[in-house]
Amino acid sequence: MKLSEIYGILNLEFSGEDIEIQALNSLGRANENELSYCDSPKNAKFIEDSKAGAVLVTEQMANLVKSKAIVVENPHLAFAILSKPFSKPLFYEVAESMIDESATIMPNVHIGSNVKIGKNTVVMAGAYVGDNVVIGDECIIHPNVVIYNDCKIGNECHINANAVIGSDGFGYAHTKMGEHIKIYHNGWVELEDNVEIGACTTIDRGVFEPTIVKTHSKIDNLVQIGHNCELGFGCIIVAQVGLAGSSKLGRNVVMGGQSATVGHLSIGDFAKVAGRGGVTKDIEGKEDYAGYPVMKLKEWFKLQAKMLKVFGIKR
Amino acid sequence: MKLSEIYGILNLEFSGEDIEIQALNSLGRANENELSYCDSPKNAKFIEDSKAGAVLVTEQMANLVKSKAIVVENPHLAFAILSKPFSKPLFYEVAESMIDESATIMPNVHIGSNVKIGKNTVVMAGAYVGDNVVIGDECIIHPNVVIYNDCKIGNECHINANAVIGSDGFGYAHTKMGEHIKIYHNGWVELEDNVEIGACTTIDRGVFEPTIVKTHSKIDNLVQIGHNCELGFGCIIVAQVGLAGSSKLGRNVVMGGQSATVGHLSIGDFAKVAGRGGVTKDIEGKEDYAGYPVMKLKEWFKLQAKMLKVFGIKR
Amino acid sequence: MKLSEIYGILNLEFSGEDIEIQALNSLGRANENELSYCDSPKNAKFIEDSKAGAVLVTEQMANLVKSKAIVVENPHLAFAILSKPFSKPLFYEVAESMIDESATIMPNVHIGSNVKIGKNTVVMAGAYVGDNVVIGDECIIHPNVVIYNDCKIGNECHINANAVIGSDGFGYAHTKMGEHIKIYHNGWVELEDNVEIGACTTIDRGVFEPTIVKTHSKIDNLVQIGHNCELGFGCIIVAQVGLAGSSKLGRNVVMGGQSATVGHLSIGDFAKVAGRGGVTKDIEGKEDYAGYPVMKLKEWFKLQAKMLKVFGIKR
Repeated sequence: MKLSEIYGILNLEFSGEDIEIQALNSLGRANENELSYCDSPKNAKFIEDSKAGAVLVTEQMANLVKSKAIVVENPHLAFAILSKPFSKPLFYEVAESMIDESATIMPNVHIGSNVKIGKNTVVMAGAYVGDNVVIGDECIIHPNVVIYNDCKIGNECHINANAVIGSDGFGYAHTKMGEHIKIYHNGWVELEDNVEIGACTTIDRGVFEPTIVKTHSKIDNLVQIGHNCELGFGCIIVAQVGLAGSSKLGRNVVMGGQSATVGHLSIGDFAKVAGRGGVTKDIEGKEDYAGYPVMKLKEWFKLQAKMLKVFGIKR
Repeated sequence: MKLSEIYGILNLEFSGEDIEIQALNSLGRANENELSYCDSPKNAKFIEDSKAGAVLVTEQMANLVKSKAIVVENPHLAFAILSKPFSKPLFYEVAESMIDESATIMPNVHIGSNVKIGKNTVVMAGAYVGDNVVIGDECIIHPNVVIYNDCKIGNECHINANAVIGSDGFGYAHTKMGEHIKIYHNGWVELEDNVEIGACTTIDRGVFEPTIVKTHSKIDNLVQIGHNCELGFGCIIVAQVGLAGSSKLGRNVVMGGQSATVGHLSIGDFAKVAGRGGVTKDIEGKEDYAGYPVMKLKEWFKLQAKMLKVFGIKR
Repeated sequence: MKLSEIYGILNLEFSGEDIEIQALNSLGRANENELSYCDSPKNAKFIEDSKAGAVLVTEQMANLVKSKAIVVENPHLAFAILSKPFSKPLFYEVAESMIDESATIMPNVHIGSNVKIGKNTVVMAGAYVGDNVVIGDECIIHPNVVIYNDCKIGNECHINANAVIGSDGFGYAHTKMGEHIKIYHNGWVELEDNVEIGACTTIDRGVFEPTIVKTHSKIDNLVQIGHNCELGFGCIIVAQVGLAGSSKLGRNVVMGGQSATVGHLSIGDFAKVAGRGGVTKDIEGKEDYAGYPVMKLKEWFKLQAKMLKVFGIKR
């Protein structure tokens, strides 16, 4: 799309040299034919080094942009509005899929365009495998699982019934009228090898990048993994956990049942969060945590004991 | 069904004028050919103005009924027993559906009887669209979504994979023996325009009335919306929230991840409930809340700080 | 499989009399042609009375085994490794199913091998009924429900849309390298009569035994029931509850919304756990509970009141 057309969509007057904008991207990843945005002073530091061909900014940040600054009142909203015309189509161009002859595809399965399915993999009845999906060897995709376009599944992965891999993240920009403008997500989900996903678990795709679940991680039923999360090697995520967007878990992190994160934080290697723990900030590895907001497990035990004692409560 | 037959089902002796009862309904909505019930002194005030042709009541409330009082020990249980013979059939009479020629219906989709589907709407593989369902223009019904009979979906709605719209609410009456008698739900779910529903989210239908999600409301993954809830314009419901039956949310209410309500309460316009907040009573709008039971957010911060300080806990 | 082959899989040197091992089983249930394991001193007392033909043990416990002791460093891990070759196949031998002629099977349904479906039962579109499944009379299996192999559904059960019955439990043994070795589950799920299961609810099968939901129990939407749980007559499990593995609930237990158990515990008859309650140990029946960890409801109310008062918090 021409930059001038983008100005048109945003009801702005265009002047200067017109360039081709091929995609939206983050400040760090955008190239000269991509458009990015900066909506918060916190991220202003990334503008300077960005290679983006144009950047949506507020007036105060306009002078930081070395390429084309598109000045708008609300850059996040402008970005959301543009995410629709730049979203990938629901269905891609038809292209033949490559399904290994040792794979089993049950009836009533949807296999999209340009899909690759590896050796001995079984796709069970009612599953939906979107366009451009890659599934490795020795996987079991259980009944009624949905894998959206562009997702990548490694070898020896089990995805249990009715799980959903690659749905759009829950991201919106907000108008002054209280409407919420959907941010279309062009990322994907990547499960490495030996990953197991529980029944009715949902994993959202990233905005531009993948949501990643690394090798040997195991995720129980009814878990929510938000957009742009990253789970390290060998994580254990127990039932009904909710990881908000951009939670970065190191290796062998354990999240107990119904625990959660508020997103945009990191959890160190080998950390264990007890059931119902609520992680609200970065926490270090090799430590046990509990409570909401989380504290170290032994502090939580102390808190429980003192509370009961001081208030004269029987358990 | 004749009133005398209803007496038969309840093992009561019938006398007096026999009338035709066409449906069950609430005291406020029932007409003279409908039967209602009152099981609690709290609702006795609604008996007087009810136009119901007959009312199931306990002996103490019998004299309040102007039409026919059906005296039973447990009116709620009698109502539950009658909800089965008065339930709508699982499948309606066959009638042609009206699917706009610009709509896309993928294979393996079930389209029921008398369905209407609007312009450019896409119904993806494995979706179930029940009888009498109306879906507007520009919607995407993602793979394996289930929309039960009678539900109404507005324009530009996205319902993500494996979500369930219009399942029966979780309502039972209880016998002295500890059995639970199912209340069949004859209501429906109504999503207005520009509503997005997350993957594996469930929205139950109302008993008599619709469960309503108003325009521009956005609901994340794995959320439970109970029967007879009402969400105002532009609500944001984050993942794994649980709204119990008859929760009424005003406009632009935000419910953080894993927060919940106990049902039969209202939340004012622009209220924000933090993640894990538990709403147990009516709360006013334009205010931030947290904790379980919820308090104002700033009181919750104070509580956390004092608790740690007084008990000497490190976070 | 010959015992000598099992030694081979575990990279152990075999000597002595070779026997046929037909299955893995728990110490209490194993017979002389089955192999069991004991990984904790806590369970050493069960070794003595076990009829297992061979037992995986650590060196310290080897002398307790009357039959063949297979000494390994990590018996739980050895057991997990063996659970794969001893797992049941994904698809059984083809055998005719017996579907009562009064039953309704909608299109796009998968009916496995050797399935029995009773009178007037309806299996709705997109449902998956695995091999060896038995479904009684007057049931409704709603759209896109998945019932895995070997599960048993009684009479008059309703399983709502997109629920999953009989997925593998979340059980793994751990290597020193931080890998998690899946324990394949050979048990099943058994729903007795008049059970209702909510939309997107997941019930895992037991390791060797069934996960059981007894007559008249009602389970709401988005509930997780772990492997080897047992729910007594007439339990009420409200939305988003999580019961961890081997939770044993007596009759007419009520679990409020989003409440949970940590597993391997029992809850007495007629106990009620309030919403968000977290059960961490055995609790007695005929009592109301709340909080996490749970205490008696009236103690919880006292705790809330004192906390607010002492800290000067307004609610």
